[in-house]
Amino acid sequence: MQNKLNSIVQPLLMGPGPSCVSESVYQALAIPTLGHLDPEFIALMDDIKGYIRKLIKTDNQLTVPISGTGSAGMETCFVNLIEQGDKVLVLINGVFGTRMEDVAQRLGAEVDSIKFEWGTPVILDTVRKQLAQKNYDLVAVVHAETSTGVCNPVAEIGKLVIDNGALYLVDCVTSMGGMEVKMDDWNIDALYSGTQKCLSCPPGLSPVSFSDRAVGKLTNRKTKVPNWYLDLSMITQYWSGSARVYHHTAPINMLYGLYQACFSILEEGLENVIKRHNEMHILLVSELKILGLELFVEESVRLPMLNAIKIPNGVDDAGVRSRLLKDCHIEIGGGLGPLAGKIWRIGLMGETAKKENIQRLMDALKTMLR
Amino acid sequence: MQNKLNSIVQPLLMGPGPSCVSESVYQALAIPTLGHLDPEFIALMDDIKGYIRKLIKTDNQLTVPISGTGSAGMETCFVNLIEQGDKVLVLINGVFGTRMEDVAQRLGAEVDSIKFEWGTPVILDTVRKQLAQKNYDLVAVVHAETSTGVCNPVAEIGKLVIDNGALYLVDCVTSMGGMEVKMDDWNIDALYSGTQKCLSCPPGLSPVSFSDRAVGKLTNRKTKVPNWYLDLSMITQYWSGSARVYHHTAPINMLYGLYQACFSILEEGLENVIKRHNEMHILLVSELKILGLELFVEESVRLPMLNAIKIPNGVDDAGVRSRLLKDCHIEIGGGLGPLAGKIWRIGLMGETAKKENIQRLMDALKTMLR
Repeated sequence: MQNKLNSIVQPLLMGPGPSCVSESVYQALAIPTLGHLDPEFIALMDDIKGYIRKLIKTDNQLTVPISGTGSAGMETCFVNLIEQGDKVLVLINGVFGTRMEDVAQRLGAEVDSIKFEWGTPVILDTVRKQLAQKNYDLVAVVHAETSTGVCNPVAEIGKLVIDNGALYLVDCVTSMGGMEVKMDDWNIDALYSGTQKCLSCPPGLSPVSFSDRAVGKLTNRKTKVPNWYLDLSMITQYWSGSARVYHHTAPINMLYGLYQACFSILEEGLENVIKRHNEMHILLVSELKILGLELFVEESVRLPMLNAIKIPNGVDDAGVRSRLLKDCHIEIGGGLGPLAGKIWRIGLMGETAKKENIQRLMDALKTMLR
Repeated sequence: MQNKLNSIVQPLLMGPGPSCVSESVYQALAIPTLGHLDPEFIALMDDIKGYIRKLIKTDNQLTVPISGTGSAGMETCFVNLIEQGDKVLVLINGVFGTRMEDVAQRLGAEVDSIKFEWGTPVILDTVRKQLAQKNYDLVAVVHAETSTGVCNPVAEIGKLVIDNGALYLVDCVTSMGGMEVKMDDWNIDALYSGTQKCLSCPPGLSPVSFSDRAVGKLTNRKTKVPNWYLDLSMITQYWSGSARVYHHTAPINMLYGLYQACFSILEEGLENVIKRHNEMHILLVSELKILGLELFVEESVRLPMLNAIKIPNGVDDAGVRSRLLKDCHIEIGGGLGPLAGKIWRIGLMGETAKKENIQRLMDALKTMLR
């Protein structure tokens, strides 16, 4: 039997996630496993909740990391907040908005969706008109569309949703820890993220937060949450209160990783981390320009941490990506769905957002596109 | 800001899980993160599927680790195999059977359950009679009831289920890797486990396997699986085939841990590992006898890896466990539900099942119960 783990060479992760992981987070993953009811572990859990609150600027009591990847966070928000026949509006301009629609439909919601062109943001006027026509139980949108590199006007949409009376759900998988997320100020009622983007922790956990209004909806459900594993009314009994009722065995070592990842960001200072993401984005764009490469998204709505690049005519998409990975150990992402073969996605998330990484990618691309 | 990770001292985990983790698994967790579509990672995925098949003795094509803990595995099996109104029989003699009932009910199944006394096994005659009366879509039982220390006659129940026509679902969270599990020989159609028991990997993943009959049920569903995250019809498109369609970002580093944990067991030899669990169980029982401690479960149906001990009269349950943890860094488990305050649960799972660990616990208990 050959152990394939022995031959793994550290890649430079410049795709849409997972992103590079710092040495301190790797070390945290290997810290001795504690029991999930050990008082020492419970103290860590309390810190983790506090760290997440700081990164998304909320005072929400119900703020926990879900024991699954970002998509489990999406599932958690919908399955806890939606009941059969609830009216849901999903604003779609990429893969993850489309996924939200699918998740909500599977749960029996009556889903309306407004589709915007991929690579462009949600248009406020269109949303305003729809919200004026119909009352919804929930309105959902993606903050940072990882599939296109577009930033949606989440704060502005939040203002429109207030008057409608709907709960407001935002996907912050790619934005959290890399750009401003102001959950409370933006009137967001439910938010989920993932560890493998700007938090620079390996994939496996999904921070989730619910406002008091969202908790109210959960508490007043007519039916049990049709998902035992993700039922927040039970999960919160383990994550808060004095009794700490066992629900499922928490992913202890992954939570060490998340603890360290948040700790590192707060130590550097969230504002500094956001500034670093912006600066590296500007550097990347200017370097790409020198190579003659253009961005897919209009400047004013570009994400700093996910840069969609138009693949030049005549260039072999898969071939370049495969050679980058094999020969240079650099991973970048391809396009998804209608954008397959049309764009590359270069991530500058967390630990990846550093000058030396951009330089290494530019050197490699220079040779490859020559 | 104080980093609480720095003060963690390795505990001896002798509770109902998580169990002790070997140095090689800790090291695996800290191996550089690869992308989830990296060919090198896909080769690891293929090995992991093969390793799981060996540990549960199956040829099932659909064998994958789910991106969540053991309870996510339970949820996965039910949500993929059950449709609204399906007839389900759950055999209950502990916490995890009870959980199965709850999961199935939430999914809209018409659930019958037969309850057996906690601490005793499922009685075959009772099951036979029930199956003769009614046809079920699915019959579910726990192999190793972690809440009581009882082994259920899973092979024998399997023979009864064949004639009924139902699918047969078995919880092997605590049994896999510590005792014989013969999925194919025992006619099991769906099985789930967890990493933090006899596999001695930290919690976070749940190996799941479906027989061809189970896959048939999934393929012929009238409705979409009402859980996007755990929909095996999509997850398998990422875990097998040539296209490797992205579903959710796999928990890469946890999967390294699972790879190494399975690798270590197969290297030691599954039969040797099972033998070690049995021998350590016998040693523990004889050592407990010297201390005047009795087991809660009758000898013929005891689990080797989960030993339920009657708490002697006048002994302070929580006090002893808390002192064991604080003063000796040894964790043992308390009783759940009706068994709270009545039993301790001593785990001998995976890496924990070693002579020196039993000796350390006995020395500590000797002092404490004097």
